[in-house]
Amino acid sequence: MSVKIAVDAMGGDHAPKEIVAGVLIALDNHQELNIILVGNENKIEEFLPGKIDRSRLEIIHTDQMVTMDDSPKQALAAKPQASLLIAARLVNDGLANALVSAGNTGAVILSAAQSLSIIPGIERSAMASIYPVAKFYRESKGFALMLDVGATIKCTPKQLVHFAFMGSYYARQVLDIADPHVALLNIGEEETKGGETLTKTYKYLKAAEGINFIGNIEGKDIPKGYADVVITEGFVGNVVLKMLEGVSEVIKDMGVYAFKKKWSWKIGLALLRTGVQKLKEKTDYSEYGGAPVLGFEKLVIKAHGRSNAKAISNAIRIAELSVKNNICKLIAESIDDFNNKHRIDFIEI
Amino acid sequence: MSVKIAVDAMGGDHAPKEIVAGVLIALDNHQELNIILVGNENKIEEFLPGKIDRSRLEIIHTDQMVTMDDSPKQALAAKPQASLLIAARLVNDGLANALVSAGNTGAVILSAAQSLSIIPGIERSAMASIYPVAKFYRESKGFALMLDVGATIKCTPKQLVHFAFMGSYYARQVLDIADPHVALLNIGEEETKGGETLTKTYKYLKAAEGINFIGNIEGKDIPKGYADVVITEGFVGNVVLKMLEGVSEVIKDMGVYAFKKKWSWKIGLALLRTGVQKLKEKTDYSEYGGAPVLGFEKLVIKAHGRSNAKAISNAIRIAELSVKNNICKLIAESIDDFNNKHRIDFIEI
Repeated sequence: MSVKIAVDAMGGDHAPKEIVAGVLIALDNHQELNIILVGNENKIEEFLPGKIDRSRLEIIHTDQMVTMDDSPKQALAAKPQASLLIAARLVNDGLANALVSAGNTGAVILSAAQSLSIIPGIERSAMASIYPVAKFYRESKGFALMLDVGATIKCTPKQLVHFAFMGSYYARQVLDIADPHVALLNIGEEETKGGETLTKTYKYLKAAEGINFIGNIEGKDIPKGYADVVITEGFVGNVVLKMLEGVSEVIKDMGVYAFKKKWSWKIGLALLRTGVQKLKEKTDYSEYGGAPVLGFEKLVIKAHGRSNAKAISNAIRIAELSVKNNICKLIAESIDDFNNKHRIDFIEI
Repeated sequence: MSVKIAVDAMGGDHAPKEIVAGVLIALDNHQELNIILVGNENKIEEFLPGKIDRSRLEIIHTDQMVTMDDSPKQALAAKPQASLLIAARLVNDGLANALVSAGNTGAVILSAAQSLSIIPGIERSAMASIYPVAKFYRESKGFALMLDVGATIKCTPKQLVHFAFMGSYYARQVLDIADPHVALLNIGEEETKGGETLTKTYKYLKAAEGINFIGNIEGKDIPKGYADVVITEGFVGNVVLKMLEGVSEVIKDMGVYAFKKKWSWKIGLALLRTGVQKLKEKTDYSEYGGAPVLGFEKLVIKAHGRSNAKAISNAIRIAELSVKNNICKLIAESIDDFNNKHRIDFIEI
């Protein structure tokens, strides 16, 4: 099955250089893959080797681009020909199967909302983020998925249940987690905790077929990996995810500080080097291939803003895999089924 | 100034042994301190040395107690003579100046709500928690205060602004932080982020006199210590705080794992021992004296459930200091002043 991915060449801290390099790696590794690179043609060509097979690579030129510091709403309104928007429209028009961008997160989410069709029966999209978890509390892949992390700030029970379907199918089909444990992030394990929205969500998740719902989990369980898929509204997910990033930065900086401070610490850290390296690999975002934006009829993968070539090639690989596994259609069918079963209940929620 | 603290002798994982031991340390260190220990007299006496000056120590006997696993609401209804409730009533009746308990968090918050008078003009109480922060991004005390962390799940702008006054005064008067940086936890730094409740809160905090408001901070800034006081609604604060606990447990367990795994790692960790020890001290909850429950006319200090004698003595020291510094009165005055200035605005929020 041949798959075509639209790639925003101008999004990300290291665009277009690392984006182009990532595309070349992906094309090399996957023979059924086709890429449309959208962006400034001259700048893109600069990073393309002279002798290259162009049969699976197309470039669509545009002068406009959204920068990392742009205000998403204003930038998309002022730049209708931004590379990100053109790439999203290609996907919506069926000229590509999925979109990959390492650009401004808000702009990626907004351009998807503006250009792509949402799956019928779904009210809100969700961005799902992959984060590393410990493996010694429970046998797992060493990472888990949390959604939403910023697309939908406040959610209804219905929307949260839909996120559970999206996350569960994505974890199973794309991340290769068999029968993923799905949990609701809450302030206590009891079914009655967290206010009306969460208690209703709990009730529906318990009844949902096709979701392996393990109940509520608390903040302390997030890094321990008890759940493969953590469901929460976008505000909380965003804070939690960024805090995990902050903690890992603090630990890294603390290591640098300790390294300079004392000779004995320096030697100690050197002896731990292989362990630290292992840990780094596990917590390296470039391994995970980016965060999917789910709920649309086509898939969007938001790669990390700091993405290097390897991270981009992984994001493209994940996008290709998602298309091949028909993830958007599976999500649509499961949610349609659930909505039909609960049509009467949902009038009130 | 003589201060009398009511201490719940039966609350906490190591009650009454460590509670009694902590009271003895506190009485030894503070000559103006008086304690009322509420709980099972026989069990308390078991841990009191024979020759002890009883002039500053009183015991009030009760057979009932709330356990750590009790459901707070049911337990308080079924046990009207629980040590925690008696201690709270003593404080409300003016027979003690403040309450210290290491018991069931939900029960401590609920018994305060049932037994203590809320400050006029304040709608909801907040539990504030102290957590360790890095010192190499900004000069700070090495810890910060976050509120609310579980007393009020969802908040209005008015309530969040009140929390800012509570936290700011507590940080200044009790934690000895001069002109504390107060920040609103949000999903972006811009004033327009986070939805209506937070944008309104931002506006009021910017205008509030006596609060050094530095704007919004994101999740990644929490462990970096850019703010001394972080304002958020109880749901988010609870998740964030428990996640920090979870991360620190994972790191500790990872160290134990590495220690067993390889000889070189074992030696490396041994060389880092002094650094790890320093870090442990900094992140040791027993140093901080517990979490204040703010918004009532009297102060409640919730010590950690795992409190040992040292943690209890620190909680009592903090309670004594709060009473001496008149923290509840200062909070009441500042909020009354703010409410008066915004009486018209608040009709709508």
